[in-house]
This record gives sequence, C-alpha cells and structure tokens, in this order.
Amino acid sequence: MPELRQNPFTKEWVIIATERAKRPEELRVKRGDKHELPRYSPSCPFCPGNEHLAPPELSRLAYEPGKWSVRVIPNKFAALSFEGEPTRKIERSRRTLNGVGIHEVIVETPDHDLNLAQLGDHQVTDVMRVYRERYRSACEDPRVVHVTLFKNHGVGAGTSLEHPHSQLIATPVISHQVRERMYESLRHYDEYGECIFCEAIKEELIDGARIVLATDHFVALESYASPTPFSTHIYPRRHLACFGDVTDDELTDLGYTLRTLLAKLYLGLDDPDYNFTIRSAPKESRNAPYYHWYLSVIPRLTRVAGFELGSGMFINVVLPEKAAEFLRNVKIENGALSRLTPANIPSV
Amino acid sequence: MPELRQNPFTKEWVIIATERAKRPEELRVKRGDKHELPRYSPSCPFCPGNEHLAPPELSRLAYEPGKWSVRVIPNKFAALSFEGEPTRKIERSRRTLNGVGIHEVIVETPDHDLNLAQLGDHQVTDVMRVYRERYRSACEDPRVVHVTLFKNHGVGAGTSLEHPHSQLIATPVISHQVRERMYESLRHYDEYGECIFCEAIKEELIDGARIVLATDHFVALESYASPTPFSTHIYPRRHLACFGDVTDDELTDLGYTLRTLLAKLYLGLDDPDYNFTIRSAPKESRNAPYYHWYLSVIPRLTRVAGFELGSGMFINVVLPEKAAEFLRNVKIENGALSRLTPANIPSV
Repeated sequence: MPELRQNPFTKEWVIIATERAKRPEELRVKRGDKHELPRYSPSCPFCPGNEHLAPPELSRLAYEPGKWSVRVIPNKFAALSFEGEPTRKIERSRRTLNGVGIHEVIVETPDHDLNLAQLGDHQVTDVMRVYRERYRSACEDPRVVHVTLFKNHGVGAGTSLEHPHSQLIATPVISHQVRERMYESLRHYDEYGECIFCEAIKEELIDGARIVLATDHFVALESYASPTPFSTHIYPRRHLACFGDVTDDELTDLGYTLRTLLAKLYLGLDDPDYNFTIRSAPKESRNAPYYHWYLSVIPRLTRVAGFELGSGMFINVVLPEKAAEFLRNVKIENGALSRLTPANIPSV
Repeated sequence: MPELRQNPFTKEWVIIATERAKRPEELRVKRGDKHELPRYSPSCPFCPGNEHLAPPELSRLAYEPGKWSVRVIPNKFAALSFEGEPTRKIERSRRTLNGVGIHEVIVETPDHDLNLAQLGDHQVTDVMRVYRERYRSACEDPRVVHVTLFKNHGVGAGTSLEHPHSQLIATPVISHQVRERMYESLRHYDEYGECIFCEAIKEELIDGARIVLATDHFVALESYASPTPFSTHIYPRRHLACFGDVTDDELTDLGYTLRTLLAKLYLGLDDPDYNFTIRSAPKESRNAPYYHWYLSVIPRLTRVAGFELGSGMFINVVLPEKAAEFLRNVKIENGALSRLTPANIPSV
C-alpha cells in the first residue's frame, strides 16, 4: 500500500509510492555525457589568469598573495539589476516592482576540474565562510529583504558553466513560498511554544532511521515526507533563524558535514546532478524563535511531471528510510575522491 | 531593468529577466533524439490489439463496434491503491495516510505515432469528453476529495510511454498548493465580491497583449506573471469552479482551443516537451463563487535550478507579451500537422 506523508513544516503531502519503489542503487546515474575536464580552461572566466573575462572582483579568500582560494564576482548576466530602487506599481491585477537586487557568483576553487565533493573539508569550510561574508554584506543593503544562496551542479540541475561555483541572489521581496514557511512555523510556535524544527530534529535523532550523519553541530537527514529521492537537509543543532549568525566553529563543522554528504552522493550515485540551497529567515525575522535555517541538498534524479505541477504533490519512489540507510553505508575512503571520473569510482 | 511581477492568484513573485531575455525563437527545441514512430507497436500496451497487455478497461469512447477512439484503463503502476480506506495516523511530527485513491490512464488515440496537436479538433474534444466522464466518476468515490487530470508529453516532461495518453489521479487529501490557491481567491472574493479569475480574464481581453486565442467559450493567454516561457492558461469565459460541470458546447470549444494551442506550440517551437493539467476546485468547493477552473499548458523549455528551488521564485527569460505575440503569429495551415516530423515542419 502506498503511503501519503505530510511535511509538518510546509503542510505539503507527498506520495511515497511503494508500488513503484526503486532500490536506491537503481537511481545511480548511467550517463554517457560525462567527460574529463581540464584543470585549467583558457576560455573559462572563473579560472585563475582569466580574471579579466569576468566583472571586477567583489571579494576573495586568499592564503598567499596573488593566489585566491575562493573568489566572488558579480554575475555577468544578473537576474536582478544592482542599480535602482525597488519601486512598486499596482494597476488592478498587475503588480510589478523594479527588478533590483544583488546577484553574485562565488567561485569555489581555482581548479576547473574539481567539485565540492572532491575538495578538502577545510576548502568547503572556506566556501561556507565566504557564503557567510556575502550573506552579511547583502543584508546591509537596505533594498534587500531576503537572501538566497544556492548551487547548481550539472546540466540537469541548470548549470551553464562547468567551473565549480555557487550563487547568491538577494531580492527586494519575500517570496510566497518563504512567507508560507515562516507562517506555518510561527503558527506551530504560537500553539506549542517551541520551534517546530528543533522539535523535529530531536525526534529524528531519537528515531534514527532517517539520519545520514550527525556531528557536534549539525544533523544531516532525509525528511520523513521527503518529496524527491535523496533530498537531504542539514540542520544546525543550535536554534538559529539566520545563516549569517553561524559561528566559526559551526562553519568548520558545516564544511565537514556538507562535504561528507556530497562525497556520499558522488560515490553512491555516480556524481548525480544536484542543487543545494540555504534556507535562511528573511532579514526582518533574523531573530525569530520559531524559524530554523538549514541547508537543503536536492539531487536531480527524477523528473517533475504533470501530476506534481498540477496538484502540487510529489511522488517519491524511494523510501526516505532506505535512502538514509544507503547513504550511511557509503564509505569514503582516503583518496577515493581525488579527481575521479565516474568510470573509476570504487564500488561501495 | 529586469521586472518583478506578482501572480495575483497565488501571490508568487516572478523575475522577468530582461537582461537574459531570449527571443521566443531561441527556445525552439534543437534535438537529435526525435525519431519517427510506427503507427502500431507490437509491445505497446496502449495500441489496439494489445489490450490484453493492459489491465481491464474501465471505459471507452467508440464510434464503431469493436473499435475504440479513446480508452480508459487503470494505471498498471498506480501511485495510489484503489483498495482500502484513507486511515490517518498522527505520531508527533509524523503524519501519514494510507495511499488510497484512483490512478487511471486515458489513451487518447489508437494511433501510436500521433499526438494531440495532430489530431482533429473533434478527436481532442472526444478526449476532453472522456476527461469529464472520468472526472465525474472519480468524484463519486467518497474517499476522493480532489481530482487532477494531466498529460506528460515527451521525456523531458516525465513521460515513459510514447503512445499518446493522459492520466487522472484522485487523492484522499487536498494538497497545500491547492488549498493556498483556494484560500487566496476566497480572500479576494471576500474583499471585492468578485471572482479574481473572472476579473483578470476581463482585464486581459481589454488589454489584449497576452491573449493567444479567444473563442466563444474560452480564452487562451500568457499570464502577466508567467513563471516559465510559453506557459499558457485556457480559461472558460463562464464562471465555473468545477471542470466536471462543463457543458457539451463548452467541451467542443475546449477541444478546438486546446488543439489549436498545442498545434501552435508544435509548429512554432518544434514539438516541445510539455505538461498540461486541469486545475479544478476540490470536490467540496464545486460551487465556489470565488474559484475558476482552467487548463494550464506548461512547455518544458528551461530548467528549474537552485534559485527557484531555494527561493520559490521563478526566473522567466521570455516576456509573456512576446510569447503571446509569437504564438498568435504561428499559422496552422491545412495538412501542416499530418504526421509531420520536426524536420519537415514548414517555417512560420
């Protein structure tokens, strides 16, 4: 019998389709489109030496003079314009706002051919440190009300440039989806006097079945009502609404946790396309006792089709418990990830 | 300057990315994966003569004895089980419901190699007539609270079988998305005493810029805050919350309108992958004065990436006004669609 599960944070229902259920291994990506990348590409605007191909740098993290580790530049094809004021216009049912905001690119490593799963933990921590710096910087802009940090890995996840990078988009509006999430968690807080996320994390740690990884500061887990296979959330154990307020210790731990999760996905599912995003509270709710920021990793293993678009309900073909078990069992051996192509990935 | 537009029905914001804007022609699909299909496939469970490969028929529309035009069967790999009761279980943050409901397949034509854009208007009307019959039949099941009709066309839209077909899924819950849509339109009704959809349709007809096609009973248009390129809504002019209550005259007109729109997409964009879905009110709101059913066609021309997943806001790279103009200008010449492969599509 299939099972409907409700996400307690969003109230969304998901169909866990046991009749169509797949073993996690069946979702391993079999692709012919993978090719070995060069460590440096002459035409890549994100490679060292090609800085002139990109807009002027906004920030960098460097350990040696003249050599950067992580670099931040404005997006050359920005979705929002940095200049201007967010003037609103309402004309009957037509509501518009000038498209002003911030759109930045965070180049994660000088190496064209690496990806986050293959970097050292400390390098992923460096990327997270730059995330925090850019997040805080964007929040200083009075036009900004919400900041989204995200990464697209692979063509199926919407990336257009191979060189590993993430993006930040800061908007002058709070989206309906974010408003809804805040509202539902506020309602829970008003009713029970507790953050619904803190509560769920505690429950999940006791249950254990959906935990992928738990560290001093973070817990990576498959949600009970996970809408898509292997969609994994990384929650801070400490209650905190705003990503910009993470401590240095937490950042170090986040780098380890995220990198380990990405390495498990890389090895276990053959470098799947994925997105990840940091779901932080809007600026105005920075200190909310009812909201809890988290990082959401979404492997793109199945396709959204007409039912999902029409009903707003997802059909998940992998039991979250099975996905968590599968990821727990992926072992990351020393050196297993250094510039591997999927063809010579060790079996797990 | 990019523009943010708000959908008045859902309150969702969309970025109309003028800096990244594409001419509609640029989204024309250039694909090598198209191949000519046979009119009959021996292994296809939906082809005439292979009825034994599919579960027992639920309904058919036939003009000659022994020959069907449209055929309905249960989905062999149903997402929901037809047997059982929707028993609910709440255990702290874990909410589940037995996955009972209805999952049917509507085979749209006996011909393996045709698609809706290539059928005659009356054949598309026949498909719509079967939709209505199945919709009504599903609503008679006391366990059902909401019915979604949808079609997946092409691999990029999530289809797994080539033979043209649509699906019906009837669920024992109302999704959060549907609840939200109802709630927002109810709020508008309470405030202004008018259906927000009726109002928007009137405004759009006066403005004209986003209209693709207007017939006696239906209006096909690009929404002002369209989230994806060429996403087109077909609204009935008459206020009606429930698709199951369309009249025969309206069905005839709907067949013409939908088929014309699909033919324009087929010719103008080289047979793009698409989904469509009928957004009808939940059963309990069948007579709602505030909600208006419509058919939503969603070509799958761009990819959802990390920003959309993280923020819930879409970036649309085609101005809805340009998309409407482009589709208005696609002429459907007689015979232009009879078993054409994209290679010999006439230029428009």
